[in-house]
Amino acid sequence: MALFKRFGTVLAGTALMATAAFAASHMDPAAEKAVKARQSHMTLYAFNIGTLGGMAQDKMPYDAEAAGRAAENLAALASLDQAGYWVEGTDAGSIEGTKAKAEIWSDMPEFEEHIEQLATATTALAENAGTDLDSLKASFGDVGKACGSCHEEFRVSDK
Amino acid sequence: MALFKRFGTVLAGTALMATAAFAASHMDPAAEKAVKARQSHMTLYAFNIGTLGGMAQDKMPYDAEAAGRAAENLAALASLDQAGYWVEGTDAGSIEGTKAKAEIWSDMPEFEEHIEQLATATTALAENAGTDLDSLKASFGDVGKACGSCHEEFRVSDK
Repeated sequence: MALFKRFGTVLAGTALMATAAFAASHMDPAAEKAVKARQSHMTLYAFNIGTLGGMAQDKMPYDAEAAGRAAENLAALASLDQAGYWVEGTDAGSIEGTKAKAEIWSDMPEFEEHIEQLATATTALAENAGTDLDSLKASFGDVGKACGSCHEEFRVSDK
Repeated sequence: MALFKRFGTVLAGTALMATAAFAASHMDPAAEKAVKARQSHMTLYAFNIGTLGGMAQDKMPYDAEAAGRAAENLAALASLDQAGYWVEGTDAGSIEGTKAKAEIWSDMPEFEEHIEQLATATTALAENAGTDLDSLKASFGDVGKACGSCHEEFRVSDK
């Protein structure tokens, strides 16, 4: 996939100054915006997954329209180009206020593969979530796996 | 448009408790999530508009690929279903931490029209932004107008 083919341009444009000794409050404004954007993106994933997960786990009644809308939102979000988000020097070891592991940058192809996996899983969910609860449940697992495996590998654990 | 046709269901499901006397820290968790989600959505608009606006105003060099990606992101964001965001009782007069005017709820058809206007303008921008700088500039104005007119009418001014 070509998500990051212009990554060099992004890097060159941000005049990165963020280091461990030069953290959050002194972060380069462009880097700060990138971190905020990627976190906002995650918030929107969580917001829509909350609806779908509540139904998948029988914690709220199944609503075909609401499920379909949330799943389509997820698929649209997963399709957004993320080239601007992953500015080098914005990992958890370099700045405050992020859980992004340095492995995102040291193993970008693997990271991109996880993003692609989420796009595939959410597209399938968008096709099925509005049909009936069983269809939603059948597709929801792969979305959860895509989230979980990426977090496991590329997000600093809270524990 | 049918953005809000299930709005009643959303309201019924959130057990709203937010009032002026029962503000931010005591906000109903579902309402708090809705506010955070709509603000995250705005952050992602701003992130992508930053790139396009920088080019449109000749503050950064035109980059066809980056412009196209940002404009496609904007169009995809503008197409997201927002039914879950605008939970009644989450206007600036009722809770802290939002600039949403009560007019959003008292004049929902007008508000929806503004959302539709942004979707139309960003779709046009997505078709043109990657062509050349003049095409970007020609389409960017309508996006700015859509943002500005909605903020004017439905967002509390900082002044």
